[in-house]
Amino acid sequence: MSNDPLKSWSNGFTKSGILNFVSRVTAEGTRDFVPHAARIAVFDNDGTLWPEQPTYIQFVFAFDRVNALVPKHREWRKRQPFQTVLEGNVEALVALDEKGLREIITATHSGMTTDEFSAIVTDWLATTKDKRFKRFYTDLVYQPMLELLAYLQTNGFKTFIVSGAGQDFIRVFADKTYCVPPQQVVGSSTATHFQVQNSSPVLLKMPRVESVEDGPGKPVAINRFIGQRPIFAFGNSDGDKEMLEWTDVGGRARFMGILHHTDADREWAYDRESDVGRLDKVLDEALAKGWTVVDMKRDWNVVFPFEEL
Amino acid sequence: MSNDPLKSWSNGFTKSGILNFVSRVTAEGTRDFVPHAARIAVFDNDGTLWPEQPTYIQFVFAFDRVNALVPKHREWRKRQPFQTVLEGNVEALVALDEKGLREIITATHSGMTTDEFSAIVTDWLATTKDKRFKRFYTDLVYQPMLELLAYLQTNGFKTFIVSGAGQDFIRVFADKTYCVPPQQVVGSSTATHFQVQNSSPVLLKMPRVESVEDGPGKPVAINRFIGQRPIFAFGNSDGDKEMLEWTDVGGRARFMGILHHTDADREWAYDRESDVGRLDKVLDEALAKGWTVVDMKRDWNVVFPFEEL
Repeated sequence: MSNDPLKSWSNGFTKSGILNFVSRVTAEGTRDFVPHAARIAVFDNDGTLWPEQPTYIQFVFAFDRVNALVPKHREWRKRQPFQTVLEGNVEALVALDEKGLREIITATHSGMTTDEFSAIVTDWLATTKDKRFKRFYTDLVYQPMLELLAYLQTNGFKTFIVSGAGQDFIRVFADKTYCVPPQQVVGSSTATHFQVQNSSPVLLKMPRVESVEDGPGKPVAINRFIGQRPIFAFGNSDGDKEMLEWTDVGGRARFMGILHHTDADREWAYDRESDVGRLDKVLDEALAKGWTVVDMKRDWNVVFPFEEL
Repeated sequence: MSNDPLKSWSNGFTKSGILNFVSRVTAEGTRDFVPHAARIAVFDNDGTLWPEQPTYIQFVFAFDRVNALVPKHREWRKRQPFQTVLEGNVEALVALDEKGLREIITATHSGMTTDEFSAIVTDWLATTKDKRFKRFYTDLVYQPMLELLAYLQTNGFKTFIVSGAGQDFIRVFADKTYCVPPQQVVGSSTATHFQVQNSSPVLLKMPRVESVEDGPGKPVAINRFIGQRPIFAFGNSDGDKEMLEWTDVGGRARFMGILHHTDADREWAYDRESDVGRLDKVLDEALAKGWTVVDMKRDWNVVFPFEEL
């Protein structure tokens, strides 16, 4: 096919299912037609648009920040969970419990203005490479998903990210990387506080988790931020289950997709037993309900943009 | 002027200031040019886009709901603040304290799904008329502000509502009335809870205030929901002060507007002493900083759409 909008997708029923869905909802005058304003698509980020192994990229950022900030926080050297981070053992890091992770996130994501935080993330993304692939993280977004985002955008969809990761972390690169503007990035957040500094107002990032948009929190966040039910939802783990369920009960034509990481050579292979990005309950549900399960190895002829160069 | 986009605005420096601002930020290749993606405009709703006297329209809705629900809540007849509501004395209603109002809002805005709530609001708006003007509330939006919204939208602005009132209340009519889609309505919210009912997931509205987007909460909400600093902000009371300040310190060309209610004959006249929509500190700040203060009597030759018919 010339001008194939999904050229990194192997031909087969996964690809044709996506093409078919978009044709149906954009065919004016037909039963399945959905007007522009209601073409809402939601995507998980970690493990759906870019890798999440051996752990979430935002955690790597937070661990790097602990190391960068330790000269100002000498007490961290002898205090958990910071000590584990400073020792740098990957397995120990992945095994950190939620309380420990929250402490690391709030400690490293507060005490600066929102503008300062964005600058720190921008700098980190421009200078830090993934250990396995030796690439910048924004070069590790999945080429087939970039094509899918662009294909939906071209067909009048508003594409949103709905992520358990930090909203203001993702916003730093989402516009440039995914063509998803800041107002279409929904994610977890820590509180901010309005304050006048030197007669100029700023928003200070506070060491307090405000909301975590994962699991049942995803449809809640979709209602709060988008206010419309999506007709297209894509995720890759049990944390996306309720978002997909919520999309599935809209009265309109709809598409629910799950990415199954099956390719240890080109990317990673994990599912039911994984600590990060566990794909278990939602995989059963997808199979039972006929949602689209994308098999990375089978369905993607290219994984990363650099493979094409 | 033929094809005047602001025909309900009297000629003068207020109108020419708005026209001039939009010309400047849309003139490609000039110093003040702002690209489409950054043309973010934020509007308060109550008192800025529709009336807020003698009290906020959402409170009128809540009071009506108390009356509608009292057969199922007989205990309300003898309990404050419900008793005051059931007695229906307007002055007593306006004097209710924040705690009482919260109790009324949470009691009347919970115990149903989000879809059921939208249906109740839709029905109420279609059947309830303002006591003074004998018109449906959605017919009482300010004609000059409708023109301003449309003018900005035509010029590539994304127009957002940032209101202290309930987000899901405003979303019911904002798209049809203002051409502002649900995802561009930011407001206060009560919590929702994801639940599976009869094997179908719903979002239940809970009796718990989640966030109140007023005063310093407005820039906080702008950051959370929009993630970009507006270049255009319009309000009418002290609750909009921080939103206007936040807009004013962007590096770009920007416009800050305040509506001063000066027309007791056509609408209402109130400012520094008003319980609802007090315009005091922000009026001083506007005068000191040269923000645009719209004098309703002087600057609007039409207030409501029906005057034109």
